[in-house]
Amino acid sequence: MKARVTIMLKAGVLDVQGEAVRHALGTLGFAGVQGVRQGKVIELDLAATDAVAAEAEVKAMCEKLLANTVIESYRVEIL
Amino acid sequence: MKARVTIMLKAGVLDVQGEAVRHALGTLGFAGVQGVRQGKVIELDLAATDAVAAEAEVKAMCEKLLANTVIESYRVEIL
Repeated sequence: MKARVTIMLKAGVLDVQGEAVRHALGTLGFAGVQGVRQGKVIELDLAATDAVAAEAEVKAMCEKLLANTVIESYRVEIL
Repeated sequence: MKARVTIMLKAGVLDVQGEAVRHALGTLGFAGVQGVRQGKVIELDLAATDAVAAEAEVKAMCEKLLANTVIESYRVEIL
């Protein structure tokens, strides 16, 4: 079973990487870019076969390791 | 208009970050993780109002700046 975790900085947390990308796009002539936020996506291959159990396990992974929940939010999709 | 770009290393390219995450999950007791691939997600706020034009513009951004198309593949979603 596959799972995808998307981790983004929470709204209000300064996204330095995103700002750098926005600036770089501006210098390349892409004028219509009003904001950029950059995050991480982690795709997991799991041995679990039960979707509900897999989602609970992936959420535990996020809380313990994958996301810094003080400044980041995460979203889990089971594929 | 919002767009989301997901950038992953192509299959066959060694994903060092993903391997590190897989190892760390194993040491934390998550035994059922068979593979991990880590990528980037970039969310863009665009001034464009036409979805087709916006998608073409974002693809141009990927080719020119956001993705290294030698080793990375990208996917564009208009939200």
